[in-house]
Amino acid sequence: MAITIRPATRGDVPRILDFIRALAAYERTPEAVIATEASLEREGFGPNPFYSCLIAEYNGQTAGYALFFYNYSTWVGPGIYLEDLFVEPELRGHGIGKALLEKVAAIAVEKGCRRLQWAVLDWNTPAIDFYKAMGGEFMDEWRNVRVTGQALRQLAGCGETDGP
Amino acid sequence: MAITIRPATRGDVPRILDFIRALAAYERTPEAVIATEASLEREGFGPNPFYSCLIAEYNGQTAGYALFFYNYSTWVGPGIYLEDLFVEPELRGHGIGKALLEKVAAIAVEKGCRRLQWAVLDWNTPAIDFYKAMGGEFMDEWRNVRVTGQALRQLAGCGETDGP
Repeated sequence: MAITIRPATRGDVPRILDFIRALAAYERTPEAVIATEASLEREGFGPNPFYSCLIAEYNGQTAGYALFFYNYSTWVGPGIYLEDLFVEPELRGHGIGKALLEKVAAIAVEKGCRRLQWAVLDWNTPAIDFYKAMGGEFMDEWRNVRVTGQALRQLAGCGETDGP
Repeated sequence: MAITIRPATRGDVPRILDFIRALAAYERTPEAVIATEASLEREGFGPNPFYSCLIAEYNGQTAGYALFFYNYSTWVGPGIYLEDLFVEPELRGHGIGKALLEKVAAIAVEKGCRRLQWAVLDWNTPAIDFYKAMGGEFMDEWRNVRVTGQALRQLAGCGETDGP
């Protein structure tokens, strides 16, 4: 059975959004997705795109995606951050996720990046085992922090009534 | 006492590298810094820079820095990732770190970002307390994974002898 990995095009945006929603549902936060086809197209396929996306096809059928961007380490320089990696549940076990991850790693090496990073939910044991098998090193001494919504606006010095 | 936050310029690169090394020493991995003045200048001040940097001055003296880049969430769109935040130890307690973080948050809001994210070492209690006071939300269900060095090259399909 043939696995093909190719760069996503604008035409893939509806399918990418399906995948994003399916991944968010799997990660138990389906309501978190406010992205739309328009936002994904604008942010990924315009000038100065915020992300790159690869599509996996299995026997000619879109089967999954990997979405990533460049990050930067002040210790070692540019790297790649893998935001999303997803394969349709019914197509798992054929090496499609591995093929996507290998392609992202190949792009990282080709671009001179010294690091490929991502994050995984602590209860997602199948993914954790897969990442360990792929050479992933878990940096469990680092805690992730974020500021969003009103807390972000407050930190930015914006009042409650300054707008959305 | 006056705190000024300003964008870094090429002329700040030697000082930024000092700060990066001081932060790495504080984070107990001083040997991890392979960045040089040349790499920081090329990656931050050329065309298509990988990062942005703010310098804090305290009474006209450089006192700290914040270094960040844009990341991307498939759920909510573009965000800012704060890679480094550092204030000289002898100048802490004057609100310099807070001023840097507030400025980064202001840039995030100005650019339409819905999220500001960063990471902190689990033993760094003073920083953790500070981030909580600033509205930081800890995403402890996410584990960070990375692939580097030979493991990255192997995942990319490069042999042992393919190069540096």
